[in-house]
Amino acid sequence: MFVDWPLDQLRDYLPTRTEPDDFDDFWAGTLAQARAAESTARFEPVDAGLATVRVYDVTFPGFAGQPVRGWFLLPRDATGPLPCVVEFLGYGRGRGLPHEWLTWSAAGYAHLVMDTRGQGSNGSMVGATPDPDPTGLPQTPGFMTRGITDPQHYYYRRVFTDGVRAVDAARSHPAVDPDRVVVAGISQGGGIAIAVSGLVDGLAGVMPDVPFLCHHRRATEITNEQPYAELVTYLKTHRESVQRVFDTLGYFDGVNLASRASAPALFSVALMDAICPPSTVFAAYNHYAGTAKEITVWPYNGHEGGAAFQQRRQLDWLRDRLGAPAAI
Amino acid sequence: MFVDWPLDQLRDYLPTRTEPDDFDDFWAGTLAQARAAESTARFEPVDAGLATVRVYDVTFPGFAGQPVRGWFLLPRDATGPLPCVVEFLGYGRGRGLPHEWLTWSAAGYAHLVMDTRGQGSNGSMVGATPDPDPTGLPQTPGFMTRGITDPQHYYYRRVFTDGVRAVDAARSHPAVDPDRVVVAGISQGGGIAIAVSGLVDGLAGVMPDVPFLCHHRRATEITNEQPYAELVTYLKTHRESVQRVFDTLGYFDGVNLASRASAPALFSVALMDAICPPSTVFAAYNHYAGTAKEITVWPYNGHEGGAAFQQRRQLDWLRDRLGAPAAI
Amino acid sequence: MFVDWPLDQLRDYLPTRTEPDDFDDFWAGTLAQARAAESTARFEPVDAGLATVRVYDVTFPGFAGQPVRGWFLLPRDATGPLPCVVEFLGYGRGRGLPHEWLTWSAAGYAHLVMDTRGQGSNGSMVGATPDPDPTGLPQTPGFMTRGITDPQHYYYRRVFTDGVRAVDAARSHPAVDPDRVVVAGISQGGGIAIAVSGLVDGLAGVMPDVPFLCHHRRATEITNEQPYAELVTYLKTHRESVQRVFDTLGYFDGVNLASRASAPALFSVALMDAICPPSTVFAAYNHYAGTAKEITVWPYNGHEGGAAFQQRRQLDWLRDRLGAPAAI
Amino acid sequence: MFVDWPLDQLRDYLPTRTEPDDFDDFWAGTLAQARAAESTARFEPVDAGLATVRVYDVTFPGFAGQPVRGWFLLPRDATGPLPCVVEFLGYGRGRGLPHEWLTWSAAGYAHLVMDTRGQGSNGSMVGATPDPDPTGLPQTPGFMTRGITDPQHYYYRRVFTDGVRAVDAARSHPAVDPDRVVVAGISQGGGIAIAVSGLVDGLAGVMPDVPFLCHHRRATEITNEQPYAELVTYLKTHRESVQRVFDTLGYFDGVNLASRASAPALFSVALMDAICPPSTVFAAYNHYAGTAKEITVWPYNGHEGGAAFQQRRQLDWLRDRLGAPAAI
Amino acid sequence: MFVDWPLDQLRDYLPTRTEPDDFDDFWAGTLAQARAAESTARFEPVDAGLATVRVYDVTFPGFAGQPVRGWFLLPRDATGPLPCVVEFLGYGRGRGLPHEWLTWSAAGYAHLVMDTRGQGSNGSMVGATPDPDPTGLPQTPGFMTRGITDPQHYYYRRVFTDGVRAVDAARSHPAVDPDRVVVAGISQGGGIAIAVSGLVDGLAGVMPDVPFLCHHRRATEITNEQPYAELVTYLKTHRESVQRVFDTLGYFDGVNLASRASAPALFSVALMDAICPPSTVFAAYNHYAGTAKEITVWPYNGHEGGAAFQQRRQLDWLRDRLGAPAAI
Amino acid sequence: MFVDWPLDQLRDYLPTRTEPDDFDDFWAGTLAQARAAESTARFEPVDAGLATVRVYDVTFPGFAGQPVRGWFLLPRDATGPLPCVVEFLGYGRGRGLPHEWLTWSAAGYAHLVMDTRGQGSNGSMVGATPDPDPTGLPQTPGFMTRGITDPQHYYYRRVFTDGVRAVDAARSHPAVDPDRVVVAGISQGGGIAIAVSGLVDGLAGVMPDVPFLCHHRRATEITNEQPYAELVTYLKTHRESVQRVFDTLGYFDGVNLASRASAPALFSVALMDAICPPSTVFAAYNHYAGTAKEITVWPYNGHEGGAAFQQRRQLDWLRDRLGAPAAI
Repeated sequence: MFVDWPLDQLRDYLPTRTEPDDFDDFWAGTLAQARAAESTARFEPVDAGLATVRVYDVTFPGFAGQPVRGWFLLPRDATGPLPCVVEFLGYGRGRGLPHEWLTWSAAGYAHLVMDTRGQGSNGSMVGATPDPDPTGLPQTPGFMTRGITDPQHYYYRRVFTDGVRAVDAARSHPAVDPDRVVVAGISQGGGIAIAVSGLVDGLAGVMPDVPFLCHHRRATEITNEQPYAELVTYLKTHRESVQRVFDTLGYFDGVNLASRASAPALFSVALMDAICPPSTVFAAYNHYAGTAKEITVWPYNGHEGGAAFQQRRQLDWLRDRLGAPAAI
Repeated sequence: MFVDWPLDQLRDYLPTRTEPDDFDDFWAGTLAQARAAESTARFEPVDAGLATVRVYDVTFPGFAGQPVRGWFLLPRDATGPLPCVVEFLGYGRGRGLPHEWLTWSAAGYAHLVMDTRGQGSNGSMVGATPDPDPTGLPQTPGFMTRGITDPQHYYYRRVFTDGVRAVDAARSHPAVDPDRVVVAGISQGGGIAIAVSGLVDGLAGVMPDVPFLCHHRRATEITNEQPYAELVTYLKTHRESVQRVFDTLGYFDGVNLASRASAPALFSVALMDAICPPSTVFAAYNHYAGTAKEITVWPYNGHEGGAAFQQRRQLDWLRDRLGAPAAI
Repeated sequence: MFVDWPLDQLRDYLPTRTEPDDFDDFWAGTLAQARAAESTARFEPVDAGLATVRVYDVTFPGFAGQPVRGWFLLPRDATGPLPCVVEFLGYGRGRGLPHEWLTWSAAGYAHLVMDTRGQGSNGSMVGATPDPDPTGLPQTPGFMTRGITDPQHYYYRRVFTDGVRAVDAARSHPAVDPDRVVVAGISQGGGIAIAVSGLVDGLAGVMPDVPFLCHHRRATEITNEQPYAELVTYLKTHRESVQRVFDTLGYFDGVNLASRASAPALFSVALMDAICPPSTVFAAYNHYAGTAKEITVWPYNGHEGGAAFQQRRQLDWLRDRLGAPAAI
Repeated sequence: MFVDWPLDQLRDYLPTRTEPDDFDDFWAGTLAQARAAESTARFEPVDAGLATVRVYDVTFPGFAGQPVRGWFLLPRDATGPLPCVVEFLGYGRGRGLPHEWLTWSAAGYAHLVMDTRGQGSNGSMVGATPDPDPTGLPQTPGFMTRGITDPQHYYYRRVFTDGVRAVDAARSHPAVDPDRVVVAGISQGGGIAIAVSGLVDGLAGVMPDVPFLCHHRRATEITNEQPYAELVTYLKTHRESVQRVFDTLGYFDGVNLASRASAPALFSVALMDAICPPSTVFAAYNHYAGTAKEITVWPYNGHEGGAAFQQRRQLDWLRDRLGAPAAI
Repeated sequence: MFVDWPLDQLRDYLPTRTEPDDFDDFWAGTLAQARAAESTARFEPVDAGLATVRVYDVTFPGFAGQPVRGWFLLPRDATGPLPCVVEFLGYGRGRGLPHEWLTWSAAGYAHLVMDTRGQGSNGSMVGATPDPDPTGLPQTPGFMTRGITDPQHYYYRRVFTDGVRAVDAARSHPAVDPDRVVVAGISQGGGIAIAVSGLVDGLAGVMPDVPFLCHHRRATEITNEQPYAELVTYLKTHRESVQRVFDTLGYFDGVNLASRASAPALFSVALMDAICPPSTVFAAYNHYAGTAKEITVWPYNGHEGGAAFQQRRQLDWLRDRLGAPAAI
Repeated sequence: MFVDWPLDQLRDYLPTRTEPDDFDDFWAGTLAQARAAESTARFEPVDAGLATVRVYDVTFPGFAGQPVRGWFLLPRDATGPLPCVVEFLGYGRGRGLPHEWLTWSAAGYAHLVMDTRGQGSNGSMVGATPDPDPTGLPQTPGFMTRGITDPQHYYYRRVFTDGVRAVDAARSHPAVDPDRVVVAGISQGGGIAIAVSGLVDGLAGVMPDVPFLCHHRRATEITNEQPYAELVTYLKTHRESVQRVFDTLGYFDGVNLASRASAPALFSVALMDAICPPSTVFAAYNHYAGTAKEITVWPYNGHEGGAAFQQRRQLDWLRDRLGAPAAI
C-alpha cells in the first residue's frame, strides 16, 4: 500500500526549511578543521582474488583527520584519468569485501567505497572504521542519536565530514579525473550523498537512492520504522530534549543541505517505502538547488526502490552526462 | 541459537538413504530425452552498460528442449578457453540484470547464470523463464509441491534437467574449457548444484552453499521455515499423500544425488540456519561420494552462511584447484 | 478499527470504470470456445457417509473443455426440479469433502460446489482440479499473477469460464430448475459470483459475500494483506509491467463485470475487512447493474463478514425470492 | 515441525497419575447435586430456515440445575429412536446458529450440541449460556483459571457437570435411543467428552479429537500456546499458588477421568499440534480404560488435526459400531 | 508516529455527548444502594518489611457492600490529618505488594490503593478482590464486556462504585483530612478517576494519566489495540448487539462523567498512544467541567505517557494546590 | 514452557570455567588505576518532591576516574550509620528519577543507585552518565559488543569498575556503615553485582536477580533473545572474531567472577526465562564461592522472575542477616 500522500501532492511538497543561523559557518569551520589534518589518503594494493580489477585498501583522513577506511577499485587496464564514483553506504552496513563492489569498475569508472564509521556489525556487511567518541553521551542503540544533544558532537557531523573528505581523497588519486567525481548511495548512503552535494563544489553528479536523513521531524510523525524510530525512542526517554534534538538536526537535515547543492542529480523514491517515506524524499528533492535534476518514482516498491533497475538508470544517466569512460 | 544437533554429532550423521529402485533409469531417461532436443544454446550479445565484461543473453534447451534463459559473462579481453562457473539460484530469485553477477568474470572466469524456470517474481530478482506445466496439478503456492504426486511431473525434474543442460550449454561455448566447468549455488542453487554433480561427469568442482533440497523428510520434522514448510502445508492438506510425496522426493533428494557424485567439492553449512538445517546439509555432505571434499562451518550464521566470505573461499579454492584463469 | 472511508462516503463511491474496448468480444469468444467442448457434465453418486442427502462427484467441462471437479448435493427425497445454488470458493480452498457442504441441501436446494482449479493445497480444504498451464509464465507464488501479462492466459480467464460452465452444468441436471439457479460465494467465491453474474443470463440471484477481485488497483494502494499483496509483489519485481498488468485486469475486474449484470443481488461487506477493503466492494456494488440489489454492512467484522449470520440472511432472502423449495 | 517426542515414545507414554483421594466422592457429590435439580430439559422447535432437519432450541438443567443452552437436530423424517451424538465445543466457541451443525443429522443421527457456559464471544461462534459465578475469584482473562484455587468453584466443575447432564438431556428425548448415545468434541470439546466418558455409564462411544484439558502440568512445561498458557500466566502472577492450582486440576485432568472410562473410543492426535501437544493426548489415551479404543495419528497437522477427514472416520466408525441409523 | 489528529485539532475536539436520559438517576440509585451497606472500612496493620511507612491491609465495602481490598500507607511519623491520594489501577493489574506503592507516602501523603475487582492475574501485579457476578453473561475474555448488555450488570458499574466508596473509605480514616482527598490513576485507573470525579463532591484534585474508558465508540473505530479491542471482538461475535452495547456504555463513558466534575484536574495524554488514542482523551478533557484544569501533552510517547515525569508534575501540582503535607 | 534443562539437572550443572591466565592481574590493575583517581564522590542534595527521604544527586569517580552519576537516598530521620544497598540497573535503563527508587530507604537502608554509563535512552528510564570511548571500535548497536575485541577497551571493563567504585563511594559516606554494604541488581544489574562480589572484599551481601552476563557462550547457543543476541549479531558479521570475542569475555564472565566471591548471597532464577536462561544463572550460582548462598527458583516466570516477591524475600533475608536497620 502507499504509505504517504498521492504522487501529485508529493511532487508539489515544498515545506518551509528550518535551519540555524550559523549553518554555513558551522560547516565551513568543520571542514576547515578536517582539511587541516596533516595525513593524506593511502591506497594499499590488496589481493582480492580478482583479475580484471585493481583493488586498494584505502585509509584517508576524515573528520578531525581521523582515519577512515574504504575500498578503491580501478579497471585493471585503465590508462588515463577516469571519472570516479564515490559511494556511501546504507545504515548499518560496512564496506564488506572488495568483490561485493564490482559494478562501477566493470563499467569503466574508478570507484571509491567509503566505510561508515562505527557501523558494519549488524549481521550484514562488515565494517572496519572506528568512531572515536570522547564525549560518549547516552544514546539510543544505533547511530542516529549519538551525541544528538550537541551539534558539535553529533555523529553525522563526523560522517558527513568523512563524506566530503572521501571526495577529496578520490580527487587526490592520479587515476581519477577530479572534475568528474560523482557521489552516490542508497538510503543512508543517499543521505550522505545529498549532504556532500551541499558541501562540496564541482561535483559532476549526485545520485541519491531512496535517501535517508531528510526532513527528520516529519519522518518521526508518520512512520514507526527503523532507523527514524531511534529518534522516537530517544525522545520517548529524554522527554525534555525535543527542541534541542531538532535544533541539532537542523544542521544535518538533507532538506537544508540539498538547498545548497548545484550539481546535476538523479534521485529515486519509492511510494511504498515506510523506512524513508516519500514526502521526506520529495522534501529534499524539491529543495535541491541543482537545476539539472530528475527523480525516478517506483510506485510498487518499498525501501528496496529500483535496486538493480535504478543502478542501470544510473549507468545510463552517467554515460549520457560524462561520456563513456576513457578507454580501458 | 543453534538449531540442530551439536557439531560433533552433525559431522558423523550418515542417515540411511531411501531411494527408488529405478532411480538411475529415471534420470538416464530424463536426460536422454532432454539431450534429444534439436535446438542448441544461443548467446546474444547485449549492452549491459558495462565496459570490462562481455555479456550475452543466453537461451538454451532445458528439460524436454524447452527454452531456458540465463546470462553469460566473459572478461572482455579473455583470449584462450576459460574455466567456467555455472551458477544456480536461490529459491524465488530470477536471473535479474547482468550487472548483478560480476564476481566470477572479474576473477577471470567465464560465468553462466541459469534462470530458474517459473521463479523470479518474489519481490527480489526478476526471472524470465516460463515453466510450462500441462498437467497443472493442485499445489501449495510456491514451487516445492508442483507436480509432487508424480515423479514424471515434479517441478524439480525439470529444474535439475535444466541444470544439467546448462553445463552442456556452457561446454558448448568456444570461450569455455569444457574440462574446467564448475557448478555452484546458494540454498536452492546449492541443491541444484548437488543434483547436477550426481548427474554430470567430469566437473572440475562443485560448490554448494547452505544447500536446500536435501533430506526433505527430516527437514519437515525439525523446522517450520519456508520453503520446506511448503511440503508441510501440502501434506497438512493432502493427508493421504504422505508416502506418495516422499516416494517422489526419493528421486530428487540431494542425499541420493550426492552419493553419485565424484568431483571435488566445497560445501558450506551454518549452525544457526533454520531454513536449511545443518543436519540436512551434513546428510548430503557425508554421503557425497567425491573424495576431495571439504565443508566450511559457519557457527554464528543463519541462512546467509558465509556470504561474501564463503565466496572468497571459493575464489581461493578454485584458484588452488584450477590455477589462475588463463591470461585475459 | 475501520480500514477505509466512512460508510456514507462508501455508499456514494462510484469510480470511473477502466475497461478495454474489446471487453465483450473477449468474453463472448472465450465462452463460445468453452461451450464448444464436446464433453458434458458427469454426476457420479458417492457414499459420503450421509443419510438425508444424495451426493454426486461432479466433473464438468470448464475452460476450453478442461475437466473441473465439484460436489453436487440433493435432498434425498426431493421430487420435482429444485432451485439450485452454485457456489464458488474462497482463495486457496478446494472442494474438500461432501459433508462440509450441507447447508443448502438441508434447506431444500440443489447445491453445486465448484472446485477452483489448481487451488486446495493451502492447509485447509483439499482440492482436486488441475490447472493446465502450457505457457507457465513466471509468477508470484499463488494464483493472482498466473499469466497476468496476457489476458488470454490469465488464470482468472479460466476460472471465470469454469464458473459460467458450472451454471451450465447445474442447469443440465434433471433435478434442477434452470430458471432458478443462484450463484454465491465468499471472498474469491464472491468475486467469481460477480463475474458469472455479468456473463450469464437468467440467473435467479447473485449472493457475493465480502467479494474479492474488484477494483484491484485501489486495493493494491490501500492494503498490504494477501492475496491482493500478490499483485504488489509481482509489480515490485516486474517494475516495467505496471500498465500491462492493469490492462489485463481490466478484463477481470468485478467492477466491470458487475456493470453487465441484471439478476437480483444480495451483497455483503465488512468495515474492518483489510483483505477485501470496503471501497473495493462498494465500487462493484455501486456499479452492479441489477436493480433489485441490496448490501448487508457488518460494521465490526473483518473478512469473516457476517459468516453464518450472512448465510441466514441468504436463506431468508432466497426463500422470499424463490418461495420455499419444492416439497421434498 | 514435530512439537513433541517421536511417535514411538508417545505410544508408550504412561505417566503416573496424580489424583486426590476423594476424587470419586467429589464427582459423585457434584453429580448428585446437579441431578437433584427439579427442572427438566426443554426442546423448543425453531425455524432455522432449513427443510430436512427439525431444529430445537434446548435448555437443560446443568451444574446445580442452572440452565444450559444447546441445539438439538433431528432428521426431519426420522421415525424410531435414533442413536444420538452429544457434541461439546472448542475453547471460546459458542453454539452459534443451527445451520452450522448439520453433519450428524444428515448422517441420520440425533444431534445435541451443548453450549459452553460463558463462552462464545471470541469473534467466532456466538454463545448464549451464562456462567453464574457468585465467588468471582480473580482470574486470568479466559476460562482456564476461573475459580482455580478451589475445586468446588473451578469453572470446569460446572462445565463437566453440564456435559454429564447434556447426556441425560439427550437420553430424555423420545427420539433418542438412550443406549446409543455417543459423546464427541474437538479440543476443549474433546476434553469434555473424555471427562463425561469417565463420569457417565453406558455410553455407546467416545470420540475426542485433539483433546485439550489433559495432563495440564506437562502442557505448561512444553508449550507457550493458548489456552494452556492461561495457566502459566496465572501462576506467573500468583507465584504462591502452584501446588494449589495443580491440586485443583487433579480433579479435572483428562488423564484421571479417562482412567475411569469404559466405552469404546476413537481418539485423534496431531504431531505438529503445539496447542494440545501429542504427549498430553497420549497420556490420556494410554490411560483410557475402555478396551475398544483406537487413535488416529495425523503426522503433518497442527491443532486442526484431521478436520473433515477425522469426521469422516467418525462417520464410518460409528456406522460400524452402531449400524446404520434407523431408517429415516 | 502520531496515531491520531494533529494537536491543534485535538485541542478543539468537543464531540456531542450521547448519554441516556436516566444517567443521573442510574448513578444516584447505584451509589445509594452501595452506601446502604452496613459494613465499614477495616484497616489492618501489616508487616510489609518497611520502616518509614505504616502499612494497612484495607477491606472496604464497595459495590452492593461487597468487600474490596486495598493498601493504605501512611508516613510513619505523620501527626495531623493528611491530604490523601486515592489511586486506581491500570487494566489487568492488582494491588500487588505494599512496597510497590511508596511514592505518595514518601511525599508526605496518605495513600489508598484500590484493588480492581477480578483483576490482578495477568502476569504483572497480583490482585486479591473477587468480582461476584451472579449473572455471568457470556463475555469476551477480559473485563470490558462483562455484563455489557445490561447497565445494571455491567462490570464498570461495580468498579466505579468501588471507586466512589474508596474515597468514602479514605475519608473515614482519622489520619486523613476529608477535604483534601485527591483521586488519580493511569490508563484504566485514569478512567476510574474521571468517573469518580463526576460522582463525588468535594475532591481536592483529579489526576488522570492517559485515561482509558472514554469515548469508546471512536476508540473502536480508530485502534486495534487492547483493551478497546475487546469491545470489537465482542461486537464481531454478537453482531446484533451494537446499539445495545453502546447504550450501556453511555452510562460509563468518561466523556459523560467528566461533564459532571468540578474539582481541579491535571490530565495527561500522549500523541503516539494507540491504546488510549489522543482524541478519546481530549474528548473527556474538553468536556471536563471543572474549570481549574490542565493537560500535559507528551508528543513522543506511547501509552507509557510521562511515566515518572508525569508523577513528578503531579507531586509539584499537588504541592502547589494543597501546600506541603502537614509536618510528619 | 521451560526454556532449559529440568531443574534437577540445572542444580548440578557445574561447567568447566574458561578464564585467561592473567585474569586476576587484569582486574587488580584496572581497579588500581581507577582508585588512583584524585576526585571523590560528591553528594548534592536535591528537591525530589519527597518528604520522608533525603535525596542526593551523586557523582563519583568510576573507571579511570570518569564521573558516574547516581542517586543516594537516606531515610530522613536516620541517625547512626546505616547498612547500605548499592544497586545496579537492568540493560538499557538509566537511573531515572529519584522517586522511582523508594524501597530500600523506606525499609531503613541507605541506598545508592548507580547509573549505567551510556545507557538510559531505550524508551524506559532515563540515564545521565556518558561513556567516553576514544577507541570507538565498530560494534553492534547496544552495549554488549562495544570494544569487544580488546579486553582493555571492552565496555564492561568500565562498567564493572564503576560498580566497584560505587561501593567505594557508598562506604565513603558518613551515614553508611562500611561493613554493612550489600550489592544487588536485576538482570544486567545482577551481573554487575556478581562481578563486584568477585572484586570487592567485605561485602555484607550479594543479591543478583535473574542475572545476565554469565556463561555467554552457552547463552548464544541456546537463546535468540536480546541482549545475548547482540553477541550473535556481532559474530554473524565478524565471522573471524569468534575466538577473540570469547577470549575477551573470559575476563567478564560471571561464572569466573563468582568463583572469587565470598560474601553471603541470595540469587534468583526463573525457569521460563529465555533472556537469561536458567543454565547460565546456575553456572554462576554453582561456581559462586561464598558458602552462605541460596537461590530462589521461580518455576512459572520469565525474565520478570520474582519481581516484587523477590524484593520481599530480599527485605527479609537482609533483615535476618543484618538485623533491623538502626533506629531512624
